[in-house]
Amino acid sequence: MIELNFSKGNGLIMTIAQDYKTGEVLMAAYMNKDSWDLTLKTNIVHYWSRSRNKLWKKGESSGNIQEVKEIRIDCDNDCVLIKVNQIGDAACHTGYRSCFYRKVSENTLIIDGVKVFDHDEVYGS
Amino acid sequence: MIELNFSKGNGLIMTIAQDYKTGEVLMAAYMNKDSWDLTLKTNIVHYWSRSRNKLWKKGESSGNIQEVKEIRIDCDNDCVLIKVNQIGDAACHTGYRSCFYRKVSENTLIIDGVKVFDHDEVYGS
Repeated sequence: MIELNFSKGNGLIMTIAQDYKTGEVLMAAYMNKDSWDLTLKTNIVHYWSRSRNKLWKKGESSGNIQEVKEIRIDCDNDCVLIKVNQIGDAACHTGYRSCFYRKVSENTLIIDGVKVFDHDEVYGS
Repeated sequence: MIELNFSKGNGLIMTIAQDYKTGEVLMAAYMNKDSWDLTLKTNIVHYWSRSRNKLWKKGESSGNIQEVKEIRIDCDNDCVLIKVNQIGDAACHTGYRSCFYRKVSENTLIIDGVKVFDHDEVYGS
């Protein structure tokens, strides 16, 4: 049995999704116990949405689901790293491959991520 | 000016440290506004320790500090990805290169990470 420490983060643990082929960090979000159990059971990544306050199957609207390739746990059992096969090649709702499509440069943000789809075409404007 | 959303996480944002050469995810922790400002100012990664409830210069005990190579921000400004040069080649206090030195396999955890130093030799037993 794998015991994660959900109590430290009031029921939530940090979760990082990393592309299993390239190593690119695609996104970070939270899981509660239910999303953790569902992820293990289905092999499809489920998070907990803090803004919508509900279980969140990643890609439920866009179809860009995340297939689990490997799950790693950190030293104090309160963070999960999942290597995923990102269906649709884009993790971010903005259409970029990674949510981290901007980098800090001289105290401002520069967009240098790869855009895969147009947000309005997928979700409606 | 870069405006991060500290309010969503009660003053804290998720921070991921990734090896700038290999892409290996080394650890995840939190930053508050002070640690974010200090990280930008010094180019050395500072976190906020939830367990010790204090500002935490990573490597302050072990010497294994993290030099900032690149900082990336996610789409909703509440998560930071830092590509680092990990001094001492180990991010984890256990002596492993990465805090994610265990992977899930058939509902148990298997250690397959690389051990760089012995915990007791560095921190005392």
